[in-house]
Amino acid sequence: SLRQERNGEAAVREAYDLLEKAGNFDNLRIAAGTKEGKARGPIFMDSDVYKWLEAAAFEYGRKPSDDLLEMQREVTALVASAQADDGYLDSVQQIEGGREGRYTNLPWSHEMYCAGHLFQAAVAQLRATGDTGLLDVAIRLADHLDATFGPGKRQDIDGHPVVEMGLVELYRATGERRYLDLAAHFVDARGRGYTKSQGKEETYFSDRVPVREQTTVEGHAVRAVYLGAGAADVALELNDAALLEALETQFASMMASKAFITGGLGQRWDWEAFGDPYELPTDRGYAESCAAIGGVQWAWRLLLATGKPVYADAIERFLYNAFLPGVSLSGTEYFYVNPLQMRADAHADENRSPAHGRRGWFDCACCPPNIMRTFASLDAYLATSTADGLQLHQFATGSFESEKGSVSVTTRYPWEGSIGIEVTESTGEWTLSVRVPIWSDHSTLTVNGEVVDVTPGEYARLTRDWKVGDTVVLELDMTVHLYAADARIDASRGQVAVERGPLVYALEHVDQEAPEVDDVLFGLDEEIGVVERPELLDGIVTLELHGETPSTHTATAWPYQRVDSAASGVGYPGANHDAEPQDPAPVTLTAIPYYAWANREIGPMRVWIPTN
Amino acid sequence: SLRQERNGEAAVREAYDLLEKAGNFDNLRIAAGTKEGKARGPIFMDSDVYKWLEAAAFEYGRKPSDDLLEMQREVTALVASAQADDGYLDSVQQIEGGREGRYTNLPWSHEMYCAGHLFQAAVAQLRATGDTGLLDVAIRLADHLDATFGPGKRQDIDGHPVVEMGLVELYRATGERRYLDLAAHFVDARGRGYTKSQGKEETYFSDRVPVREQTTVEGHAVRAVYLGAGAADVALELNDAALLEALETQFASMMASKAFITGGLGQRWDWEAFGDPYELPTDRGYAESCAAIGGVQWAWRLLLATGKPVYADAIERFLYNAFLPGVSLSGTEYFYVNPLQMRADAHADENRSPAHGRRGWFDCACCPPNIMRTFASLDAYLATSTADGLQLHQFATGSFESEKGSVSVTTRYPWEGSIGIEVTESTGEWTLSVRVPIWSDHSTLTVNGEVVDVTPGEYARLTRDWKVGDTVVLELDMTVHLYAADARIDASRGQVAVERGPLVYALEHVDQEAPEVDDVLFGLDEEIGVVERPELLDGIVTLELHGETPSTHTATAWPYQRVDSAASGVGYPGANHDAEPQDPAPVTLTAIPYYAWANREIGPMRVWIPTN
Repeated sequence: SLRQERNGEAAVREAYDLLEKAGNFDNLRIAAGTKEGKARGPIFMDSDVYKWLEAAAFEYGRKPSDDLLEMQREVTALVASAQADDGYLDSVQQIEGGREGRYTNLPWSHEMYCAGHLFQAAVAQLRATGDTGLLDVAIRLADHLDATFGPGKRQDIDGHPVVEMGLVELYRATGERRYLDLAAHFVDARGRGYTKSQGKEETYFSDRVPVREQTTVEGHAVRAVYLGAGAADVALELNDAALLEALETQFASMMASKAFITGGLGQRWDWEAFGDPYELPTDRGYAESCAAIGGVQWAWRLLLATGKPVYADAIERFLYNAFLPGVSLSGTEYFYVNPLQMRADAHADENRSPAHGRRGWFDCACCPPNIMRTFASLDAYLATSTADGLQLHQFATGSFESEKGSVSVTTRYPWEGSIGIEVTESTGEWTLSVRVPIWSDHSTLTVNGEVVDVTPGEYARLTRDWKVGDTVVLELDMTVHLYAADARIDASRGQVAVERGPLVYALEHVDQEAPEVDDVLFGLDEEIGVVERPELLDGIVTLELHGETPSTHTATAWPYQRVDSAASGVGYPGANHDAEPQDPAPVTLTAIPYYAWANREIGPMRVWIPTN
Repeated sequence: SLRQERNGEAAVREAYDLLEKAGNFDNLRIAAGTKEGKARGPIFMDSDVYKWLEAAAFEYGRKPSDDLLEMQREVTALVASAQADDGYLDSVQQIEGGREGRYTNLPWSHEMYCAGHLFQAAVAQLRATGDTGLLDVAIRLADHLDATFGPGKRQDIDGHPVVEMGLVELYRATGERRYLDLAAHFVDARGRGYTKSQGKEETYFSDRVPVREQTTVEGHAVRAVYLGAGAADVALELNDAALLEALETQFASMMASKAFITGGLGQRWDWEAFGDPYELPTDRGYAESCAAIGGVQWAWRLLLATGKPVYADAIERFLYNAFLPGVSLSGTEYFYVNPLQMRADAHADENRSPAHGRRGWFDCACCPPNIMRTFASLDAYLATSTADGLQLHQFATGSFESEKGSVSVTTRYPWEGSIGIEVTESTGEWTLSVRVPIWSDHSTLTVNGEVVDVTPGEYARLTRDWKVGDTVVLELDMTVHLYAADARIDASRGQVAVERGPLVYALEHVDQEAPEVDDVLFGLDEEIGVVERPELLDGIVTLELHGETPSTHTATAWPYQRVDSAASGVGYPGANHDAEPQDPAPVTLTAIPYYAWANREIGPMRVWIPTN
């Protein structure tokens, strides 16, 4: 897709320079002894290099090119040069902490976090390029970890999960069972008091409750969802039904009470954390881009483990509405946080504030390379194959192959609901499974023009003797729908959100004739217009909503007014408390897909729209 | 009052032991060289000692006792022993940073913050006890500051204001003009780039915009309001109308868009900061107890400078609804933060979480001694005297004196609206001013039985030849009122808050017959019952509200449901998504004053109640 092209052509290649500039490569050089100096950046600097290597590998797999292969080999050699003789690797720790400092501050040191990202990158490189350079480094480091941690060895855990996913990937690539066992050990070692023993607040680290006993998600959101994903990998490989059930319960709790309608995860700015159930502030929702990516990874593994279509529905929501807003249309500027609202006069008080728009990089640069690797590997989330056929989970134009048969998909999704599928190879009888999204009430599916009954929220399972040229057409119901939040989500009370197809919409100030986006009421009973705008924001469908500017909003000095007698405002001197109430006036509001906001002049935006 | 008694008898005396236990006194001993060891606690540990000394002085002034005087003298001697030869004093800095480390990290070091609290305590001690022990220490430190900072000397500022208030107090007590000039310098030195030059985010430190150019409050809430109060002291003493006007504008902006209905200040947990206009989350509002105290101090100085009754109204709101909830009825347990809502299943993930209830002390113990000194000095906010008479700003039983005349006040306020005032001394003609609160629509005032017209939100100014035994009776309108928030305060949309007299009310779980406080709808048109409950929570008036349990709330797996077709919930496995919607049922809700919550079993609470 266009967005993947820009990710590959611009973002991944520019990031090479950005990592050089931020000092990530220098840290590795200093650790290797080829350069003098102090470590720069946060303690997890190596992980950004690994995420970039993973992105570069996926991008090479998507679209091979010599320059990208050359870059990877150069950086891989740099990583290998920094590795200690005994396999240990963490440049910042090697520079600042020395040999005796290893693994002495695991709640914060991110040593295994970096290792996990290295393992993921190494396997991606192996699969995409056939190179084993990074894999060799990964194996030596994994062996070092395995020699240090586990039953009968040290029981400590890393404060930031991801090593679990990395170890399982490494197991899959190498067949080395010890790596899987170590991942399983790390999953079960959580919630046993390690971070508390180090004087830390255990909730933050997903270390308060053993994974198998936990019923929700809590603490730092990225940590929590990475742990869920890694534990799901373990459950999948070990066929561990009890663990899988616990993870499904946690995921369900998250979606039922701790996710924004965008799928954004992580409710609190402070500590980048999950909050209490139904604490879902529109304005200060954190919804970190990395948490959305972790949500995709967790849901994907639960989909693989269970085959339940609800996880594919969740992935779609995460991708379009929680991951995609994290990056500009140009592919090179990023949001760290993705709130559902920005008011007039919002003040950008720090690097990651939405009020200054997306940024090219961050001091804590976890999000940019995470977005790059996700873009470059998006294709992998679209379809799967099994012994009995092919499963289409997400909709995009492209070719999908399995041992039993292959198809070609043509669609203008998500703008249009028509998905055309043509069989391009077939070995006889097999099953083509196509997800019918939960939101599509009235879908029609035809096979060679013949109607087949389908149910929203399930896979249409089409088993037949497929012939090359057979066509399947799925027509999804793109009716615009309004959504209201559970009564306990106070922040969204009295408001509606608007969705069309898989997209959550938003009002952005630049599209409105109304004076302020903060200052409108939506008319619930009005018709909603659907407008193709090929010239706008790379081509989108906008929605035309009808409403009015409110009369309830007057510029009072004290913003709490009597319901029983409107007049008596407390007058604080200096405030404009004599302003006349406005008369309500009809207004037409233009909504754009939420992911596309903040690509023009930055200003007020809201997903939830007050209703009359 | 009872609450002041408990503060004096229990809290102030227990705090002496708590300061010993937390290491505050040991830090001073180590700095004095009479003990060996490392500094304990945060860098501003001395300030807690000074706030306690100030509380002890006020308490001694309120109710003299030998043991309290002895404690003060002992701690004063300890403070004096820690002071360096040249007048410098900051025990943590002296222990950890040495001589060359002085004033080298002013954004974070809190050296002048501690000094400011020392100055306030020294003046309080002088006034209450006549002792000059602490004053001598204060003068030497103030001279050291004056020799170091100011025009032609260092231009740097402390990251945390309070030294401005302290220096002006010291000027008032000593008449030493240099202290006032230095305070004025520190006010005008802000917003000139110092903290930015130190690599810090200047918004947090109220250092982004010069004080005279600032139009709102931003950054760390306590810093912002302490700065406002200190600048108001400077404006008052220098008769600086331009500065005063800027401060009134800032205060008005704060009250118009950044204050909770309780008067709680500071909207964000992260960085304990003010947020954007109308960002006023009920659940995660920070509303730090110290910020409420700073709000009182700021409003008090603006009241003294302008005589405008609106500042007395603000002080009343802060005291009853933002300060008072910060401490238990017992006087010895504290809330650091005071949100307006706690939902079911709220999780206490750190020391200052409301979910575990009030605590006896904190690692960052700014709030407890701040509350103590405020309780002990509350009497000072009740009334003022001028050359032409006596002004009653707040209502409490007691005696109030001025040169022209004295009165005795008898009232059961805030439970009853009747304020009885009797003249006990008089020199002839003078003016007795009595505030008529902004919220009291239909007040009656009589002088010796004769009705005088009064206007809510103004002072009744009664000028006459007062005789001993003259009686004034003010009958305030205690009608219960409902309040709705400005349309831009999304967090309170579709909800009402309930007030009676000066008190904001709340629903606390333990008083309800409804299954969940999170789960009720208030009937707007129903009668509200007013019930005296002398046995409950030290004696309160409760309100009986009529409502229903809602039908909108069903336990769905995805909490966002279609407005246009109720049935289609996304089903996440593991969640209770088959739960039947409840039928709405009538329910009677009992509201208590917000300040009194969390004195029984901790659980859900809400100030804002959804309406039908």
